[in-house]
Amino acid sequence: MSSWLTGALAEPRPESLLFLRRDEVVECLADCDPVGVVRDALLAHGAGDTTLPGEAYLAWHNGKGAYTRSIGMPGAVAGRDFGMKIINASVTNPELGMERAGGLGLCFDSETARVTTVMEVGVLSAVRTAAVSALAVDAAGYGAAERVGVVGCGTQARLHLALLLSRTDTVTDVTLFDERTAAAEALAGSLTARHPGLRVTLAPGVPEAMAGRDVVFFLTTASEGYVREEWIAPGALLVNVSLGDLTDEVLIGARALYIDDLELIVENPRRPLGRLIGEGRIAPAAAAGPSVTATIAELLAEPAKPVEEGYVVVNPFGLGVLDVALFAEVRAQAEKAGRGQRLRLL
Amino acid sequence: MSSWLTGALAEPRPESLLFLRRDEVVECLADCDPVGVVRDALLAHGAGDTTLPGEAYLAWHNGKGAYTRSIGMPGAVAGRDFGMKIINASVTNPELGMERAGGLGLCFDSETARVTTVMEVGVLSAVRTAAVSALAVDAAGYGAAERVGVVGCGTQARLHLALLLSRTDTVTDVTLFDERTAAAEALAGSLTARHPGLRVTLAPGVPEAMAGRDVVFFLTTASEGYVREEWIAPGALLVNVSLGDLTDEVLIGARALYIDDLELIVENPRRPLGRLIGEGRIAPAAAAGPSVTATIAELLAEPAKPVEEGYVVVNPFGLGVLDVALFAEVRAQAEKAGRGQRLRLL
Repeated sequence: MSSWLTGALAEPRPESLLFLRRDEVVECLADCDPVGVVRDALLAHGAGDTTLPGEAYLAWHNGKGAYTRSIGMPGAVAGRDFGMKIINASVTNPELGMERAGGLGLCFDSETARVTTVMEVGVLSAVRTAAVSALAVDAAGYGAAERVGVVGCGTQARLHLALLLSRTDTVTDVTLFDERTAAAEALAGSLTARHPGLRVTLAPGVPEAMAGRDVVFFLTTASEGYVREEWIAPGALLVNVSLGDLTDEVLIGARALYIDDLELIVENPRRPLGRLIGEGRIAPAAAAGPSVTATIAELLAEPAKPVEEGYVVVNPFGLGVLDVALFAEVRAQAEKAGRGQRLRLL
Repeated sequence: MSSWLTGALAEPRPESLLFLRRDEVVECLADCDPVGVVRDALLAHGAGDTTLPGEAYLAWHNGKGAYTRSIGMPGAVAGRDFGMKIINASVTNPELGMERAGGLGLCFDSETARVTTVMEVGVLSAVRTAAVSALAVDAAGYGAAERVGVVGCGTQARLHLALLLSRTDTVTDVTLFDERTAAAEALAGSLTARHPGLRVTLAPGVPEAMAGRDVVFFLTTASEGYVREEWIAPGALLVNVSLGDLTDEVLIGARALYIDDLELIVENPRRPLGRLIGEGRIAPAAAAGPSVTATIAELLAEPAKPVEEGYVVVNPFGLGVLDVALFAEVRAQAEKAGRGQRLRLL
């Protein structure tokens, strides 16, 4: 090798970073209390003690003409945790046998801004989502739910149910639906094996998955609303994780409507709730007509009761700062347990 | 370890990524023609065949109260190269013996959007900057310069001079200035060792470093303009890499003014040229009075001649898509030569 670069550079002071595979991230998450970390980060966010800048968004069409994108979300929590989530996806990934989304979580050093840690982000992101749902179910007053419905039986469903069933012993009955019958069957098999006393039913459609349910989780990739008001059991809580399943009438008709972050929702009129607020059909703050009732952070401070009539909707947009808080916790656990691979960077 | 997570997850299909340390990135850059890659990417950008979304920007003050930040810049070139540059910095890093800025370059798979490669970005970023300067010097008509001045003697200066001296044998005489005398002396020593015929002089100040120079490179961390018009030799080219050194009068008085990207410059009124265009004191396109003459991409298509009177300014804001093109080339070189470490991600 001979080049103009050879010898032109001063010798740098060595730097390194910690690399964590998914299985190592899972071990770190198992060693800590991710729900507690997410709860603290939600409260910090509610108190204005987080920084959540605009995301870097790159979209293109891949060789099959399918929507493909990268999102980079930096964030800071409580002046202590700094980092960035990079979550990329292509619509055609499942056809290739891959998870639709994948990416990396990065921790930044608070003093130098150096990248200290690179970790697989898929499971962590799903754990964050499930933790927000679990906290919202409790704080909305549905912590003693008995009958649970799940629409969409992928990784999110696995983690939502695993976490929910670890936090309560009141759930007796779970109904599952997925267009891909095999996915629903696989989840049913796994649930029955892990929770022998649980009654697990495969529903033939979404209305049947929702009938008589205290809580229904929407964990699909639906891009157009299809859930109708008459499918909802009286008093039910709908946890609208995938954001695309509920029709406008269902969002407008909710007795109570809980969100994670108003600004994020309003800034994204591509999503139904953001559009409805933009159109003035749902008020952005508690009011007599259709309106946002409270944030999840507000609910954590002052929990609600289940409704007797009508139904409640939780609409968590997804907060990158919660992931950043989990990155920092995973890194701390990894250092404590000596997990991961230290890589020389320069 | 026992946790709600244990056993809840389906076994994923294995995925991996390629990790490249700085020395491996340098070897890959030495094996290819980074100036050619940057040239092609500049032409693609000029032809509208790149995507450069808004960056994700997180800033905070570290424990010493110093400005500390992370910038995430995704980009796409010619529908072929996709990736993201993460470049973080803190003002107090040099006090710790570290380079001020550091970060990672990521390649994304065009079909799946997965992160395929993680590489150290510091040298690559400096090589990109030096390549743009070298291309601009040539295209502006100064490829046969004999007397060169350099203000600021850090890594950028090392790479600028190494690249320039590899591309021309007309340079006979280099003047160096840095407030940190040791940095200037170290660079002078390295230059003299590598180029025995070259006359290398340490200047006592910026005016002396600029006197009689055909080309002057500004490679400092200056945040406030201080360079005065009377310091400039007639006919000189000023390459304003660090963006903060030239006073308003110098920018306004230029006979010709070349830029890399008008939109980026106008969107950043914190930088002098963006502010002057915003204030209407420099026209954004070629005009009779003070104005932007052309982009570097336009110059590459139609090279200019040196001016006889007055002086020329090149103001390269810095284009993240050029780094993305280099990431893809470095990855290709690494695969060809079997460089880097393959890491299982999941």
